[in-house]
Amino acid sequence: MICHSFDDIMRMEKRFRTCFVNCLSGVKSPVLLGSQDDNGCTNLAIMSSVFHVGANPPLLGTIIRPHSVPRHSLENIIETGVYTLNHVTVDFFEDAHQTAARYDKDMSEFDAVGLDPIYRNDFPAPFVKQSPLSLGMSLQERQTLSINQTELIIGKIEWVYARPDLIETDGYISFESLGGVGVVGLDSYHMLQALSRLPYAKPKVVH
Amino acid sequence: MICHSFDDIMRMEKRFRTCFVNCLSGVKSPVLLGSQDDNGCTNLAIMSSVFHVGANPPLLGTIIRPHSVPRHSLENIIETGVYTLNHVTVDFFEDAHQTAARYDKDMSEFDAVGLDPIYRNDFPAPFVKQSPLSLGMSLQERQTLSINQTELIIGKIEWVYARPDLIETDGYISFESLGGVGVVGLDSYHMLQALSRLPYAKPKVVH
Repeated sequence: MICHSFDDIMRMEKRFRTCFVNCLSGVKSPVLLGSQDDNGCTNLAIMSSVFHVGANPPLLGTIIRPHSVPRHSLENIIETGVYTLNHVTVDFFEDAHQTAARYDKDMSEFDAVGLDPIYRNDFPAPFVKQSPLSLGMSLQERQTLSINQTELIIGKIEWVYARPDLIETDGYISFESLGGVGVVGLDSYHMLQALSRLPYAKPKVVH
Repeated sequence: MICHSFDDIMRMEKRFRTCFVNCLSGVKSPVLLGSQDDNGCTNLAIMSSVFHVGANPPLLGTIIRPHSVPRHSLENIIETGVYTLNHVTVDFFEDAHQTAARYDKDMSEFDAVGLDPIYRNDFPAPFVKQSPLSLGMSLQERQTLSINQTELIIGKIEWVYARPDLIETDGYISFESLGGVGVVGLDSYHMLQALSRLPYAKPKVVH
């Protein structure tokens, strides 16, 4: 095994370290965060740090870096209290990735990359029409993590919009049917191939 | 599109809701969290809510549910200040999943599921010998999220152990070479098939 200590990591060239450390959390689902300011100026930003916080009530967390592209998203979330999370498929992951470019605030990434905003149930944030699984979120908690000044955002799931065939009889959502992708690091996209669903684990000595 | 509101979700049957909401964050890398108490009694628990917090310094976050199996892990992390995160591959994901069973504290999941603890560089938490990518972590911050009493753990990466062929020249780690798996919801494991690495996004109007 190759071994890298904390000090080794801190001495790595900046881009190498960014790439390396971003891979260590493994594969994640990229999602497009849709938001708008009080004037209706829309923003769309790809994120890959959405994580489960709870099912009852349904909560998701997101980490936003202090000076990253999604700062427009963060400003909009704080201004309006709402945002959308839209899962990305193999059909539009390249357009989704392009939202990471540093566009000016008055250039909507929807227009820049060619994805379509859609409004549903009077929810005041734009969904991505191309996404087969989208969530309408309301901001519940925001805190700046003292350790590195990243922003932790916790949102409540207000709306779930899903293509009808995706939800199975026990509540499971097939990401293989959805054409969902996974991202490793900042730029490496993967397709998902279902292996198996394992039964609920009960105590036993296996070996 | 099928539409579920927050109220619909709250009215879902408990197991259906748990399955459904756990899918909404998409695919994640399962990791095995290795820990031990001050007497050296080891614990191993599968987690799928590890997320990137920062690269400089290298930090990862984890959410631990208040009354879940990994409470023994949480007690150990608080007691010793250290833990390991071990990526799971297609070769042992079934054994890894089995660590989710509610074993008594005096039964080590290493023994119960047949994975091997290994100690490296005098780091006082057990790594999983079978894992080709393991991290030694030190606890930096712990907080109970007021919104649902889950525990947020932030750790600093002290050590990275990787099979030599996994790290590419720019720092990228190939999860396809590693045989890494992704999990959707609590139990659905997937293989990863690399699609493409996309270039750093620069502002341009694509369409």
